[in-house]
Amino acid sequence: MKAVQVVGYDRNLEMADVPLPSVTGPYDVIVKIGGAGVCRTDLHILEGQWAEKSGVTLPYTIGHENAGWVHAIGGAVTNVAEGDKVIVHPLITCGLCRACRSGDDVHCEQSRFPGIDTAGGYAEYLKTSARSVVRIDDSLEPADVAALADAGLTAYHAVAKAARRLRPGDRCVVIGAGGLGHIGVQVLKALTAAEIIVVDRNPDALKLALSIGADHGVMAAGNQVEEVLALTGGNGAEAVIDFVGEGGATRDGVRMLRRAGDYHVVGYGEHIDVPTIDIISAEISFVGNLVGSYNDLCELMVLAARGRVRLHTTPYPLDRFQDALDDLDAGRVRGRAILVP
Amino acid sequence: MKAVQVVGYDRNLEMADVPLPSVTGPYDVIVKIGGAGVCRTDLHILEGQWAEKSGVTLPYTIGHENAGWVHAIGGAVTNVAEGDKVIVHPLITCGLCRACRSGDDVHCEQSRFPGIDTAGGYAEYLKTSARSVVRIDDSLEPADVAALADAGLTAYHAVAKAARRLRPGDRCVVIGAGGLGHIGVQVLKALTAAEIIVVDRNPDALKLALSIGADHGVMAAGNQVEEVLALTGGNGAEAVIDFVGEGGATRDGVRMLRRAGDYHVVGYGEHIDVPTIDIISAEISFVGNLVGSYNDLCELMVLAARGRVRLHTTPYPLDRFQDALDDLDAGRVRGRAILVP
Amino acid sequence: MKAVQVVGYDRNLEMADVPLPSVTGPYDVIVKIGGAGVCRTDLHILEGQWAEKSGVTLPYTIGHENAGWVHAIGGAVTNVAEGDKVIVHPLITCGLCRACRSGDDVHCEQSRFPGIDTAGGYAEYLKTSARSVVRIDDSLEPADVAALADAGLTAYHAVAKAARRLRPGDRCVVIGAGGLGHIGVQVLKALTAAEIIVVDRNPDALKLALSIGADHGVMAAGNQVEEVLALTGGNGAEAVIDFVGEGGATRDGVRMLRRAGDYHVVGYGEHIDVPTIDIISAEISFVGNLVGSYNDLCELMVLAARGRVRLHTTPYPLDRFQDALDDLDAGRVRGRAILVP
Amino acid sequence: MKAVQVVGYDRNLEMADVPLPSVTGPYDVIVKIGGAGVCRTDLHILEGQWAEKSGVTLPYTIGHENAGWVHAIGGAVTNVAEGDKVIVHPLITCGLCRACRSGDDVHCEQSRFPGIDTAGGYAEYLKTSARSVVRIDDSLEPADVAALADAGLTAYHAVAKAARRLRPGDRCVVIGAGGLGHIGVQVLKALTAAEIIVVDRNPDALKLALSIGADHGVMAAGNQVEEVLALTGGNGAEAVIDFVGEGGATRDGVRMLRRAGDYHVVGYGEHIDVPTIDIISAEISFVGNLVGSYNDLCELMVLAARGRVRLHTTPYPLDRFQDALDDLDAGRVRGRAILVP
Repeated sequence: MKAVQVVGYDRNLEMADVPLPSVTGPYDVIVKIGGAGVCRTDLHILEGQWAEKSGVTLPYTIGHENAGWVHAIGGAVTNVAEGDKVIVHPLITCGLCRACRSGDDVHCEQSRFPGIDTAGGYAEYLKTSARSVVRIDDSLEPADVAALADAGLTAYHAVAKAARRLRPGDRCVVIGAGGLGHIGVQVLKALTAAEIIVVDRNPDALKLALSIGADHGVMAAGNQVEEVLALTGGNGAEAVIDFVGEGGATRDGVRMLRRAGDYHVVGYGEHIDVPTIDIISAEISFVGNLVGSYNDLCELMVLAARGRVRLHTTPYPLDRFQDALDDLDAGRVRGRAILVP
Repeated sequence: MKAVQVVGYDRNLEMADVPLPSVTGPYDVIVKIGGAGVCRTDLHILEGQWAEKSGVTLPYTIGHENAGWVHAIGGAVTNVAEGDKVIVHPLITCGLCRACRSGDDVHCEQSRFPGIDTAGGYAEYLKTSARSVVRIDDSLEPADVAALADAGLTAYHAVAKAARRLRPGDRCVVIGAGGLGHIGVQVLKALTAAEIIVVDRNPDALKLALSIGADHGVMAAGNQVEEVLALTGGNGAEAVIDFVGEGGATRDGVRMLRRAGDYHVVGYGEHIDVPTIDIISAEISFVGNLVGSYNDLCELMVLAARGRVRLHTTPYPLDRFQDALDDLDAGRVRGRAILVP
Repeated sequence: MKAVQVVGYDRNLEMADVPLPSVTGPYDVIVKIGGAGVCRTDLHILEGQWAEKSGVTLPYTIGHENAGWVHAIGGAVTNVAEGDKVIVHPLITCGLCRACRSGDDVHCEQSRFPGIDTAGGYAEYLKTSARSVVRIDDSLEPADVAALADAGLTAYHAVAKAARRLRPGDRCVVIGAGGLGHIGVQVLKALTAAEIIVVDRNPDALKLALSIGADHGVMAAGNQVEEVLALTGGNGAEAVIDFVGEGGATRDGVRMLRRAGDYHVVGYGEHIDVPTIDIISAEISFVGNLVGSYNDLCELMVLAARGRVRLHTTPYPLDRFQDALDDLDAGRVRGRAILVP
Repeated sequence: MKAVQVVGYDRNLEMADVPLPSVTGPYDVIVKIGGAGVCRTDLHILEGQWAEKSGVTLPYTIGHENAGWVHAIGGAVTNVAEGDKVIVHPLITCGLCRACRSGDDVHCEQSRFPGIDTAGGYAEYLKTSARSVVRIDDSLEPADVAALADAGLTAYHAVAKAARRLRPGDRCVVIGAGGLGHIGVQVLKALTAAEIIVVDRNPDALKLALSIGADHGVMAAGNQVEEVLALTGGNGAEAVIDFVGEGGATRDGVRMLRRAGDYHVVGYGEHIDVPTIDIISAEISFVGNLVGSYNDLCELMVLAARGRVRLHTTPYPLDRFQDALDDLDAGRVRGRAILVP
């Protein structure tokens, strides 16, 4: 089959002809790819940023946001059947460790990550596990939802955590209304009655955010902290969800937070650097967020099926993988680029 | 009556003769002081560190850790009667704002803080509110429990928050087994079945911690991170409660934390300075802690009455206030210094 | 002023001329009534059902669902000012007991209940407390929201409790889409992404429910259990909220519940009568619900201000109180009858 | 191997010679039995009470409380190795359904129950799954802990649920200090600082309860409700855990419950029969409890290893299975009877 592979760092990806993956274990599931999201992490992989961390051996097939149809299953698989439309949770987890047994499978002690440390989905077929496939509604198409497998899941997980404490009348600031943020706004709208304030540098992103549920849009043009304080009676918001995490977002974001508020860290890049006296005197928390669980993905697929979460996508034929990456790198992609075999 | 007052910054406290406080409002409570804790914050007040923040006008009476007997009450007070033995919650709260109405009275929008921004308890009598007095068990003496009003309450609040997620088999690292920490260990023991690992620079503090419930003592002598990791199967602890917050405690403490763990900030001084990528890739949280609620103080008094929490105290007659402060400053106080009028 | 009073049981209410209530305590608030809801409980009071329980002395003014404008305040009141538009929480609570200090003021150990055990709101003015008045948005009118003070608050409280565990993909059955139920449906829609199945005997009530957010309407015509099971893949719903509680509703409702599900009891009349083996083998819970807290009422007022919760009301001039009660008794009221002085 | 089998209902069990179970699936685990608890459910099975519910085909091997040593494992098993000492969770669960993925594996949609619907542990070897075996501490012996696999696990699960809301100063009533109850008391003591009031008809059971952590023992001799109310200031307890569930226990137990309290149903037999008006006016809940999860069992094993939970057991050689059942039926067993092959 065709597969797009990393053949070296600081080199372009290359299309290769590789053997079709086959069922070898009882819980194996082979998925015929319907769409594979092109993610900024893929650019970072090519730059070698993940080389040491993942320990992967080159060449290997890239792509960690996948959806498609079940092509073959191992003998112990009971949750999906051949032909089922599925989205693929990014991790393959063991199901036996304490984290997996708690529903917190993201912290599985033995997980693998197709597209990062083993063969991914820029290909015609992908090998994953019964524990990673979520059947999707008939009304959804793999190519349309593939990017929810990772970007969407991360946004859902963070928002669902924040939503637990957001009551009507509370405010939630969303920093960054890009790929993750615009899903986050839709999920906030679905799960809470909180007032949503979106902060972004891009007027188009703010316009989109307002059209999908945000109550206020604030331009990050230097005065954003004051504007958020003005919108919150001078007190700040009960929760800030930071999908940016760089360029000074955290320094500003903390100032938008109310006493006893929660600062949810999703985007990354810079340091959180806060005096401990500020943490204790306002009794604020910083909450890390990492992808989401299998059950999170199931819940997100319910929202997608009900039309509560919609993604903008731009499809590319698998052969045009280089264009997709180039467009992403150059900021030319509207929504999410999706490779379609 | 006699009262010890701040008469200027960078000057010694002075004993003055001031009018007895009287009931003027319906919820006023006048407490005859049985004991007033001498706290490091009192030293900081004299250095002027709180001058601007508190906005207090000099001279004023200092002392924010108080217990005694109810001397007089306003007409609307129903929860205590003259003669009741009470400990005094450090804040006077409004009871009307959303925080007060949620049981989160520490974040009251209109609170006052006797000893910080209004007359405190280094005196014969203190004026406080019905909302601030907790009746204590017959078996407890005001001078013995006064220091639980602030130091103990802060430790209780932080530990109770951490305890919500600590299951049998989980580990909790306590950084610092001094004034707050040695109460924290006792509260952890009372509220959870978690394994308790105490880290301190002082071998005597470790010995004390082990005698009151800690499972392991680790000397903070350079190798403490590795020792904690060795005690936790290389994974780190589900929770770290940091009662120090300076001198590199946070940098080390974060390395003792397991994936998905909670870092509770109680002590303060230095910055939390962590790359956002570390926060998200391990999905850890930093949780601020500030004093504790009225109900927290009630619960702590139950533990004290049942002998589950014990404080070491050194009493000083009120007249010897200067000795108490000097001893504290010089590190000569065993346990907590208590002024007894 | 004019006031409508209970002068004897099994007798009609009578209009009387009584003194205006005046401020006597520091937290007193006098409200000029803008609307007072007419509730089925008022009929029960006249039948004498509450005579012993409330211990009230006749004659007294009835009416426990009130909203209006602040007319006068006691000296310690800081949360409202003269002229403010307010809705009145049905209980006057002490603010000092453990329940009040936990935000659970419905379980106040010393509460009073105007309209039940002291003078209520079928009058020109009502005396209540600073702890009971919630300022409402400029866009809301007292007569329009008065019925949210009790009926709406009870529905909100029950739904908010149920909502804590309802995830996207979960189902919630609402039994009864009448006065409380139709508010419950709107609150469920605002707070969760759960699928809402409404069961009622009245086709008009089902039609209304579907128009305000229910996903499915099921006629309670004998086959309702089977229909709900069919809508839930044979498993039953994660939560049932029973606003009826009589006429066999609980027996049927339990059969609509999924393993590990929660049965929320709001309406009352009949017994819950379930074999303990059914409770343990399916591990279900029965959850009582009683009015709601002050903060619940604040949150409901936010939803009302944002147009997320709307009530149908029929206004009557205060003088026509007898018509309102007669119409309610005869089932002729559309929505809620409101007395307007 | 030797196995004790049900050969017909209302007939005695019979010893048979059956083939050793063998590994056929990737997650299979064969356990050499070190001890199998003899449970009242085993008597009920022989009476045919479970015949229809379980659908099991006779003859089959009975015994659902098992511990021993891993004898053989399937190819995909990574959490245990041959020779490991293990306790066996009573259910074999799928690991793929939503309940399993949430940590709530007791509600697995495809579980099997060795000893009930498939071959159990009154035998030399038992076939179970990697998802069901928990490694135990070196200091524990299989025959000593076997009864924790079901009786102990059920008590742990119920108490852990109750413990979530029990604060210092709260009271918990334990109805029944027998097999489950005396474990429940020890777990309450380990997980909470609540005051423990034990109610039982048997003075020896009360004496045992007081020796392992109960604060008060109340004889169920007719006046138990009044005595519990007297011990709780007339208010009742924040939680009741009912390990009896028959003979009037629930009727009395509800009267021991405080407003807003939780009634945990564990024992079964009679009906819960309560007017809905009592449920709503006191806002109480009834909470079902069923066995416990795999993680619950891990946590209980930690408590056992630390000496916080101890069981009284009476060992019988496997050949003397009939004596063990006869003794249980006649009330002659002290603690739990354990069959040892």
